[in-house]
Amino acid sequence: MFGHVKDLQFEAKPDGPDAAFARRLQEILGGKWGEMTVANQYLYQGWNCRLPGKYKDLLLDVGTEEMGHVEMIATMITRLLENAPLSLQEAADDNPMVAAVYGGSNPAHFIHGGGGALPTDSNGVPWNGAFITASGNLMADFQLNVTAEAQGRLQVARLFNMTDDPGVKQMLRFLLARDTMHQNMWMAAIEQLKQDGLEEMPVPDAFTDSKQFTDEFSYTYLDFSPGQDAAQGRWASGPSPDGKGEFRYDGNPRAHAPEPVLAPGDPRLYGTNPDPAGDPHEVAR
Amino acid sequence: MFGHVKDLQFEAKPDGPDAAFARRLQEILGGKWGEMTVANQYLYQGWNCRLPGKYKDLLLDVGTEEMGHVEMIATMITRLLENAPLSLQEAADDNPMVAAVYGGSNPAHFIHGGGGALPTDSNGVPWNGAFITASGNLMADFQLNVTAEAQGRLQVARLFNMTDDPGVKQMLRFLLARDTMHQNMWMAAIEQLKQDGLEEMPVPDAFTDSKQFTDEFSYTYLDFSPGQDAAQGRWASGPSPDGKGEFRYDGNPRAHAPEPVLAPGDPRLYGTNPDPAGDPHEVAR
Amino acid sequence: MFGHVKDLQFEAKPDGPDAAFARRLQEILGGKWGEMTVANQYLYQGWNCRLPGKYKDLLLDVGTEEMGHVEMIATMITRLLENAPLSLQEAADDNPMVAAVYGGSNPAHFIHGGGGALPTDSNGVPWNGAFITASGNLMADFQLNVTAEAQGRLQVARLFNMTDDPGVKQMLRFLLARDTMHQNMWMAAIEQLKQDGLEEMPVPDAFTDSKQFTDEFSYTYLDFSPGQDAAQGRWASGPSPDGKGEFRYDGNPRAHAPEPVLAPGDPRLYGTNPDPAGDPHEVAR
Amino acid sequence: MFGHVKDLQFEAKPDGPDAAFARRLQEILGGKWGEMTVANQYLYQGWNCRLPGKYKDLLLDVGTEEMGHVEMIATMITRLLENAPLSLQEAADDNPMVAAVYGGSNPAHFIHGGGGALPTDSNGVPWNGAFITASGNLMADFQLNVTAEAQGRLQVARLFNMTDDPGVKQMLRFLLARDTMHQNMWMAAIEQLKQDGLEEMPVPDAFTDSKQFTDEFSYTYLDFSPGQDAAQGRWASGPSPDGKGEFRYDGNPRAHAPEPVLAPGDPRLYGTNPDPAGDPHEVAR
Amino acid sequence: MFGHVKDLQFEAKPDGPDAAFARRLQEILGGKWGEMTVANQYLYQGWNCRLPGKYKDLLLDVGTEEMGHVEMIATMITRLLENAPLSLQEAADDNPMVAAVYGGSNPAHFIHGGGGALPTDSNGVPWNGAFITASGNLMADFQLNVTAEAQGRLQVARLFNMTDDPGVKQMLRFLLARDTMHQNMWMAAIEQLKQDGLEEMPVPDAFTDSKQFTDEFSYTYLDFSPGQDAAQGRWASGPSPDGKGEFRYDGNPRAHAPEPVLAPGDPRLYGTNPDPAGDPHEVAR
Amino acid sequence: MFGHVKDLQFEAKPDGPDAAFARRLQEILGGKWGEMTVANQYLYQGWNCRLPGKYKDLLLDVGTEEMGHVEMIATMITRLLENAPLSLQEAADDNPMVAAVYGGSNPAHFIHGGGGALPTDSNGVPWNGAFITASGNLMADFQLNVTAEAQGRLQVARLFNMTDDPGVKQMLRFLLARDTMHQNMWMAAIEQLKQDGLEEMPVPDAFTDSKQFTDEFSYTYLDFSPGQDAAQGRWASGPSPDGKGEFRYDGNPRAHAPEPVLAPGDPRLYGTNPDPAGDPHEVAR
Repeated sequence: MFGHVKDLQFEAKPDGPDAAFARRLQEILGGKWGEMTVANQYLYQGWNCRLPGKYKDLLLDVGTEEMGHVEMIATMITRLLENAPLSLQEAADDNPMVAAVYGGSNPAHFIHGGGGALPTDSNGVPWNGAFITASGNLMADFQLNVTAEAQGRLQVARLFNMTDDPGVKQMLRFLLARDTMHQNMWMAAIEQLKQDGLEEMPVPDAFTDSKQFTDEFSYTYLDFSPGQDAAQGRWASGPSPDGKGEFRYDGNPRAHAPEPVLAPGDPRLYGTNPDPAGDPHEVAR
Repeated sequence: MFGHVKDLQFEAKPDGPDAAFARRLQEILGGKWGEMTVANQYLYQGWNCRLPGKYKDLLLDVGTEEMGHVEMIATMITRLLENAPLSLQEAADDNPMVAAVYGGSNPAHFIHGGGGALPTDSNGVPWNGAFITASGNLMADFQLNVTAEAQGRLQVARLFNMTDDPGVKQMLRFLLARDTMHQNMWMAAIEQLKQDGLEEMPVPDAFTDSKQFTDEFSYTYLDFSPGQDAAQGRWASGPSPDGKGEFRYDGNPRAHAPEPVLAPGDPRLYGTNPDPAGDPHEVAR
Repeated sequence: MFGHVKDLQFEAKPDGPDAAFARRLQEILGGKWGEMTVANQYLYQGWNCRLPGKYKDLLLDVGTEEMGHVEMIATMITRLLENAPLSLQEAADDNPMVAAVYGGSNPAHFIHGGGGALPTDSNGVPWNGAFITASGNLMADFQLNVTAEAQGRLQVARLFNMTDDPGVKQMLRFLLARDTMHQNMWMAAIEQLKQDGLEEMPVPDAFTDSKQFTDEFSYTYLDFSPGQDAAQGRWASGPSPDGKGEFRYDGNPRAHAPEPVLAPGDPRLYGTNPDPAGDPHEVAR
Repeated sequence: MFGHVKDLQFEAKPDGPDAAFARRLQEILGGKWGEMTVANQYLYQGWNCRLPGKYKDLLLDVGTEEMGHVEMIATMITRLLENAPLSLQEAADDNPMVAAVYGGSNPAHFIHGGGGALPTDSNGVPWNGAFITASGNLMADFQLNVTAEAQGRLQVARLFNMTDDPGVKQMLRFLLARDTMHQNMWMAAIEQLKQDGLEEMPVPDAFTDSKQFTDEFSYTYLDFSPGQDAAQGRWASGPSPDGKGEFRYDGNPRAHAPEPVLAPGDPRLYGTNPDPAGDPHEVAR
Repeated sequence: MFGHVKDLQFEAKPDGPDAAFARRLQEILGGKWGEMTVANQYLYQGWNCRLPGKYKDLLLDVGTEEMGHVEMIATMITRLLENAPLSLQEAADDNPMVAAVYGGSNPAHFIHGGGGALPTDSNGVPWNGAFITASGNLMADFQLNVTAEAQGRLQVARLFNMTDDPGVKQMLRFLLARDTMHQNMWMAAIEQLKQDGLEEMPVPDAFTDSKQFTDEFSYTYLDFSPGQDAAQGRWASGPSPDGKGEFRYDGNPRAHAPEPVLAPGDPRLYGTNPDPAGDPHEVAR
Repeated sequence: MFGHVKDLQFEAKPDGPDAAFARRLQEILGGKWGEMTVANQYLYQGWNCRLPGKYKDLLLDVGTEEMGHVEMIATMITRLLENAPLSLQEAADDNPMVAAVYGGSNPAHFIHGGGGALPTDSNGVPWNGAFITASGNLMADFQLNVTAEAQGRLQVARLFNMTDDPGVKQMLRFLLARDTMHQNMWMAAIEQLKQDGLEEMPVPDAFTDSKQFTDEFSYTYLDFSPGQDAAQGRWASGPSPDGKGEFRYDGNPRAHAPEPVLAPGDPRLYGTNPDPAGDPHEVAR
């Protein structure tokens, strides 16, 4: 069960409006790697977590914090949308900056949202549930969470370079700091999973039935292009990071199965089949 | 530029048909973590890669291999769809297995695909471009690639337990082996990035302007629920994995900004504003 | 800013598993009228609300409660997914009930979610941000909120009739009671808006520039089919509910503008244009 | 069955082109609350309506009218797209207005649509079927229809303020007038449903099995944040609008169920489970 | 402007209910090649058509007819959904046919639609505007229309084989007959475009600026795989169907540009760039 | 199985950057008719093709070539994105061209893609699997392929007119030439199918059970609007293109079935039904 306090975790107030930047800020609100994604991802992972205790707590705590980040960014966007040029006539006073704001803003911010934030990315494409994963396997999901914070922090840092507004920059600094913590936190959680003897790499480490292919396929780099640049990498020789194998390099990977020839289809589906009355190879080959 | 050989990288032939399993296998073809995702993700990362040499080669090589996996799974699905019950009448011969196949199969496999594979997940939701990310930052993307292979191998392992068909299981073993390699490979590539002095954690390590918040926010775990289970974790004390800080624990995080009070909106947008003719707090509070 | 307690607002424990019903319950979690929709809709409306005080508080309070409903339903689904038949072989023991569960369950619940809830509807289509609206106009949005609770309660009542499980039914009773409250609450909020002199019907009542059409178009029912059944309704005569007009009935609505003839297009777009060298009517008519 | 006349219901001719406004006008054509939504929503509600007579007629009549509005707006957009700047070079003649049109227009209008209207919203996101609901319960659906017309009229009024073009404004006035009628009409239809004894609030009024929770949950406002602004509202005390209860206020809502502890998952799904060989609380808590 | 008559173009009444077939029938209502697609596609093409006269009339006529087909199929689905098993308990009476109906039906038909048709495909994925194209070029669009009718008729024919219900089959026969007409009609319209001197193949025939590549690229088949099966086809030798060239065959296509080496990116975007302080090839290759 | 060479099929290097054009070029990369569509469509058609030999080879060859076009366009976009204005401040130096670039560019290109291509259309809407069809019937699919190349070439030709950059224009000329070949090739493949006796029009020609409707419905043009412009077309009289019938014209099509009256719904779904205790026509009509 959740509670809400009216204060914000951190200040979300720009020094001035900028509707074009408001559109851009949507990317970290409702984009694939935005705050709606991490909030929902951690909460779903927590709800589905079958381990009581510190892991479930961790997931639900951080998901709850991210809900507060959604709130901060929505608030910031709503303020950035104030005083925007609504029409071409307002944009046409021989001032390229107003023209750029008009051209670069999101019409739906005004027509649909009435000057408020939307649950969409920077192009107005709605956030959707496929952005999140809660697989039930904590190692797979903590790896995803490291990435989510890395991609998220990357996007915040880019946005930091797209504005001069001190108020906006201050909020972004806060988010960058929290993303720093969260990247570290999920890396630490991966360490903890290993220490607790719960999961190892590769995921899922409990699967044991592909041993016959270990020598040939589980540790061999297959190079599908001429030239051997890739052979210079750490991934082509030496011990594998999972500690269970030795990398090998195959510069000329071969096919292991012949060209597939499919059986004729069910005639009730009216697909194009080899002619039943003759040799299909003579007719259609 | 690409080339194609007609042979398959590995055999994709079931011992018998199973249209309900064919529906399930779609998850690793056109689902969020399926082969279309990794193929396109690595190729886009490769095309956008601004570093010539081994990294770009790695990305394009493996993306090319994954195209061959898309081919194998599509072929397997097409064969699993043979001889499926098309109507309720065929499913109604007092045989629960046929009823289960009829109920559990995907109608679009027959109506739309004519008995062939579709670029969708196990529920028939189309694959889409938002499933992939090519951020330009190799550390962020290699972290995502580790996850993609982890989530992918997890799904293949689950599917392995959802069928008894020896031919299907053999192809899944091959995919599990390659996912083992690819998880290791992306972990090795992360090591290589560090060795080459190109990227560090947290991403992006080149961003330097949030130092003022380092002490308070960059390494502090904020616990947003009563109870301190989360304080027991590796993420609440000790050195941070990035080697740059020391974790701290805050069991009672405070808000840093007051309740946001927004300015009235542009009246041309007809939002509900405080009454301009009186004290909005008297009227509407 | 949000907080979380580990206890649930209400119990979410079935008496037994039922993976097919779990699929169905997804509709009120991640469907268009599910709890993710009302939670996010009320929160966004609250964040964008430019009136401080009771309205903003109302929106954020109820949105916060709905987050707790998301949690309850996700928990229930995760429990309903236990002990599900994973393969056709398990469904094929001559037991139609197991066949029905196998055929009626959602494969992604197992392959993607590992036995946990997903942010999707009952067909596995992801929840998306277009399901919610926060227009900035409280009258328009409160009307939507009445509907959201009406559609939501309707769906819960239908699900109540799709299971015999006492634990499931008990949670659904709780949700039905809260939806009763919430329908009443938004209706009361509409009354309050009027009492406070903030908004009237029709929305937006501040728009005043279509008076010229009031007589002919603003209160006239246009009947676009033969037969006059519709003329019997409350909407075809008598005073209009907004108190500003009188309904009229027009059984034979006429067109007010001639067939549109478009100008030729820009030839650089290669659309099919009337032949510039001749009379397009002679050539192409 | 439908028929078509070539004339338009109302004139749809701008005084001049404006490709940036054409993009904006798409919101009321193919956006969530646009004409495609109301046309399809009323038609589906009509086709699914199990009551012969005036209600079914009402739904199909108005759906048919809305098809004519789709036609008008599509025609208007096509005309607004004429003479648009196609290239950066055309936008670069030191004229900020042309730059604003170039920047603010939708590239797909030209590349995909060849200068014609598209079935998308103002950001180019396609209209989709999830925008509409036909629930079979007329009270729930008429409430939605009131909202659809309210949100729609709100958007038209906003667009009215985004252009100076007299021809565009005239068409928008017509749409505003019809939306006035339609809001009133659906409100009248709700009254009629009650008069005819068919449906009451709350929806569905025929559901009767949650009486045990009436006292505690069906009429109690739960305040999930500190501060009691919300207690001042009409929704916190007094009789409920459905006439069946009395509002109560609970400023400190409690949880009714303990923290959920989930059973271990099926090991074949490889989720992270408590260690079966030891006390999971010792290992992982 | 449109009108509606209450009668149906053709009878849409099954002999008995079949909720599983109702789910399947959705494919030709709201699927990619369903009636919503052709109705909207022809109407948008008509509204955007810049040629007055017979072509515009053709498009709007047939689009209007297709709206009547949408109506028929929606009506049929609503009838097929009657008397469906709502719960596992109803499906569990040792009758595989009921189990198959329960497993094979669409839960949203009942929970969301209340037993009515939905604007989705056979898997419940919503119809969307990207399914249609109105390019402004009639040759390109009429080719698409031929395909739409071909794919549509193919799907109807498959559905014909998925049921024994005489009433359903009779409606499908009618649709097959109309799809026969419509395939022929669009082929005839292509002939007419040529006769009228408006458009030729290849589309757009008015584009003239690639003549330099005609010899090498405009008529040469490039074979990207070993083996020369494809050389046996009509597409590898002889005159081209557009009458403007002669097919050639190239069994070993070459690359025409070197490996692309990208410039370093803007450092403000934090992509991984070659090390500015050293030779990137030494460091990272 | 696929291979990759590092060289490009054709040069993809602009003479200068243009981030606004880069956004536009996305339409032919990840739009409905872009290269991702044709690549995936031909490959899926090939994998699902049940005819060994020249047709399967054709499909896989051309799909493989199109993968190389995806690569070229992605490379071009990445180069066009260099040196773009990142902020309003950079766009505001009194230079309308920079304002137009800022306003007309896609923010996600920078925030999400770090200056690289994305798998989306020109508005940032992700490519999705519903863009492609592989029906199993080669005649239906080759018709679609003709269209795909026609729509694709049309879009490339339009883009050719939206830039002055010689490097961009040269790559577009190459694509136009290949689209010329591919349109011809699919037309030739249709001829070949007929020559080989495999498929005829209308699709599917093997369906034979609608003969009873041939006279009345299979060759009759139904005119659903007043006025007889459409009667002038090739589609209203003369022999039908399939060679099996004679076109007829019906200027006043009639309905063949009465108004549908639906049975009452299952009361457990709470739809609005006729009152069971009285005459529903008296109560609700």
